[in-house]
Amino acid sequence: MSDAATRLIEQAGRKLGPKVVITDPNEIEPWLSDWRGRVHGASPAMLAPGSTEEVVEIVKLAAEYRVPLVPQGGNTGMAAGATPPADGSAILLSMRRMNRIRSVSADNRVAIAEAGVVLATLHDAAQEAGMRFPLTLGARGSCTVGGLTSTNAGGTQVLKFGTMRSLVAGVEAVLPDGSVHSGLGGLKKDNRGYSLDQLLIGAEGTLGVITAVALRLVPAIAGRAVAWTGLGSPAKALELLRFLEARTTHIEGFELVPQDSLDLVLKHVPGTRPPLEGRHAWHTLIEATTPDAEHDIAAELETLLAAAMERGIIDDAALASNEAQAEAFWKLRDTISEAERAEGQTLAHDISVPVADMPAFLTDAAAKVEQAFPGVIASGFGHLGDGNIHFHVRAASHAAPGWYENEGERITEFVDDLVTAAGGSISAEHGIGQLKRAELARLAPPGRIHALRAIKQALDPLGIMNPGKLVP
Amino acid sequence: MSDAATRLIEQAGRKLGPKVVITDPNEIEPWLSDWRGRVHGASPAMLAPGSTEEVVEIVKLAAEYRVPLVPQGGNTGMAAGATPPADGSAILLSMRRMNRIRSVSADNRVAIAEAGVVLATLHDAAQEAGMRFPLTLGARGSCTVGGLTSTNAGGTQVLKFGTMRSLVAGVEAVLPDGSVHSGLGGLKKDNRGYSLDQLLIGAEGTLGVITAVALRLVPAIAGRAVAWTGLGSPAKALELLRFLEARTTHIEGFELVPQDSLDLVLKHVPGTRPPLEGRHAWHTLIEATTPDAEHDIAAELETLLAAAMERGIIDDAALASNEAQAEAFWKLRDTISEAERAEGQTLAHDISVPVADMPAFLTDAAAKVEQAFPGVIASGFGHLGDGNIHFHVRAASHAAPGWYENEGERITEFVDDLVTAAGGSISAEHGIGQLKRAELARLAPPGRIHALRAIKQALDPLGIMNPGKLVP
Repeated sequence: MSDAATRLIEQAGRKLGPKVVITDPNEIEPWLSDWRGRVHGASPAMLAPGSTEEVVEIVKLAAEYRVPLVPQGGNTGMAAGATPPADGSAILLSMRRMNRIRSVSADNRVAIAEAGVVLATLHDAAQEAGMRFPLTLGARGSCTVGGLTSTNAGGTQVLKFGTMRSLVAGVEAVLPDGSVHSGLGGLKKDNRGYSLDQLLIGAEGTLGVITAVALRLVPAIAGRAVAWTGLGSPAKALELLRFLEARTTHIEGFELVPQDSLDLVLKHVPGTRPPLEGRHAWHTLIEATTPDAEHDIAAELETLLAAAMERGIIDDAALASNEAQAEAFWKLRDTISEAERAEGQTLAHDISVPVADMPAFLTDAAAKVEQAFPGVIASGFGHLGDGNIHFHVRAASHAAPGWYENEGERITEFVDDLVTAAGGSISAEHGIGQLKRAELARLAPPGRIHALRAIKQALDPLGIMNPGKLVP
Repeated sequence: MSDAATRLIEQAGRKLGPKVVITDPNEIEPWLSDWRGRVHGASPAMLAPGSTEEVVEIVKLAAEYRVPLVPQGGNTGMAAGATPPADGSAILLSMRRMNRIRSVSADNRVAIAEAGVVLATLHDAAQEAGMRFPLTLGARGSCTVGGLTSTNAGGTQVLKFGTMRSLVAGVEAVLPDGSVHSGLGGLKKDNRGYSLDQLLIGAEGTLGVITAVALRLVPAIAGRAVAWTGLGSPAKALELLRFLEARTTHIEGFELVPQDSLDLVLKHVPGTRPPLEGRHAWHTLIEATTPDAEHDIAAELETLLAAAMERGIIDDAALASNEAQAEAFWKLRDTISEAERAEGQTLAHDISVPVADMPAFLTDAAAKVEQAFPGVIASGFGHLGDGNIHFHVRAASHAAPGWYENEGERITEFVDDLVTAAGGSISAEHGIGQLKRAELARLAPPGRIHALRAIKQALDPLGIMNPGKLVP
């Protein structure tokens, strides 16, 4: 441990007490690796403030002693953005104790939640107020509002409601100079200069520590319908989405699943069953919801899918007949990554291209990867309606244990090159963190890299905010 | 003219020709003052690029010779943000020749328009494609896409569709280092670091020159209904809005008008008539629209207003029976500022507070201003549903010609203090420009001022982008 870190921890202990300053290695240990267990860090202490004022104290100490902080929420990120560096030079800043929901207003359609509020808790609080916070994702039981905001998280309902950037009405954050940016005022219109709120969303804790967020609520769901379809190609899937969108405003989830992924889920995940008879090259999972209790959303979706079948867009469809079946359909989608891991080594790529280009991209890219790296299996699943696919490449069955580090890196560069050539993004929703930083540096235009570095340097000249993350 | 400016103009003339480099004072003159004629600037030349490449050339020359540029669109801004400094030290950069609509896609619901495209032209192009660009405001016949984006413009349809920040899908801009930021790719999800798009929106040309914008389109209007109501107070008006919003999703315009403002319009604007019999302390103008040709929007609005009258929320209402009457209702709202100017000297304050607080704020603030400055008349009109009111203070009838500069400044500070104490914004939609810069410096928290300056310095270290604007 550096002398500076020792002095910071002593000072913080004196000012904030043992509840905030945690030095027991057993308590810190579980938070030092990313949740996929791929990146391991070290930290001499974990600071766990309970209020914005305590965050201010901590940031001022970090500036005084020049010891960087690594903000962390639920530690469910996909890019190791909340994992401290391995040399122990930074201190973990756990935001999980700031877990108060300050207010929920159905009238204003806004909830104000502290950074450490878990997404599922926010869902419950909104529901109790007769409202809904629409963003959701697999980690909802542990991911936090601060982490979701700092990574501009997406998930399965982006199609209708957008990413966090669309759902955040304001941010409260402690900036690197110890000042508090208060964007929670609830102003619908405010043109007093650059939007610091928007700059902090997706900044992965590199420009300040988000302490609370004002979140937009939407009317509660009064009815939902979930369906599974079988169809011939990603192009047919996009045709189906456009067909539905032209006829209803109620579609909020639309996930693409290849037969290959479904097979793995059925093989590895207990209690799963195929939703349709027979095999189909591709599948979609569709969720429609309505805030209107008198609207028969299941009947509407059924009629639309029958019409789509008549037109030859889909080959087969099944409507979940109850909530249990709806959840079973979603489980088939949500356990794909888990099933892949059970099968063997897998490389994940969270990519986007323009929506209309995704079907062709998906088919072409899979063929090119399989040709260039014989034996691997490439396929994509996920948020087709957002132009965002999780493009995964599985190792050949005979791959050696070191495949991930060896061939893996070359495959990722190959995929990222294809995405960049298609005008797409090498990180659609997972962010850059540590894991994609080198690729961002390799592929982003120099002007953009210069701008990112300049903004970082301007707002965090001492480099105390999550060093080594996001900025190439 | 400085030597540097002379050399820049020579160089630009050689590289880009006389179409781009305009030095005839008669051609430049009309663009040197803000449209309200309050601020007058000077410029040795007006550069009028026709392409992004030409803007790159110009920005590089500006950097080389350290001569600042003042980007300008339709010159309809309310804060003199596009007016060059009076000492002639900067060069006007007219974006009006970049007026191509690059594409309109009903499928993707996006139009890509160059910075100089006039809003009304964009409206027409969207309509031809069977779609609609929903943002609109009084200056639609001359304001441009670049100016609207650079000022994060609002207008009368923000209630349903948000400000430009919600409607911009991506920005193309030339940054101060001459690099081109290309955000027009049409990616729905992209988490590759800080959002430069969001930073450029509302930056008033101080961080770069916006050259083109991808704009979200919505389905075309198939039917609209416009109504005028008379009611007792701003609180009743907000109650009416909440009553309507709980029962329909079709309200997109909701404007508050005091009797006092209506009286001025009827007095000064030819051809105007009162929409209701008798007098009412307050009025609202309501616009409901539907994209569904089979939906009888007029009948729906009529039924809702009848129910509101029954509940005692409103005292009277009139539904426009045809398009001409609808336009006549809107004219009563749109000519308030014009009528005020005809009446005498008026101070305009474009302010916002949280929506729920606006009724009380409006009543209190008007009383306090009239008490502190005997003889003046204070009243507010505008976008109640956004918490954004144009709070105007008219000089006493006996006010001397210099009132605006003398008492006016003290009144504005008095109003801005009230707004700040209420947690509001001294610029809801008009921006900071030159005119509100001193007040922003006086009232913004030091941490925020520091952040704005740091970002400006980081991205525009040579200070060549619209100096003296926005950043305190």
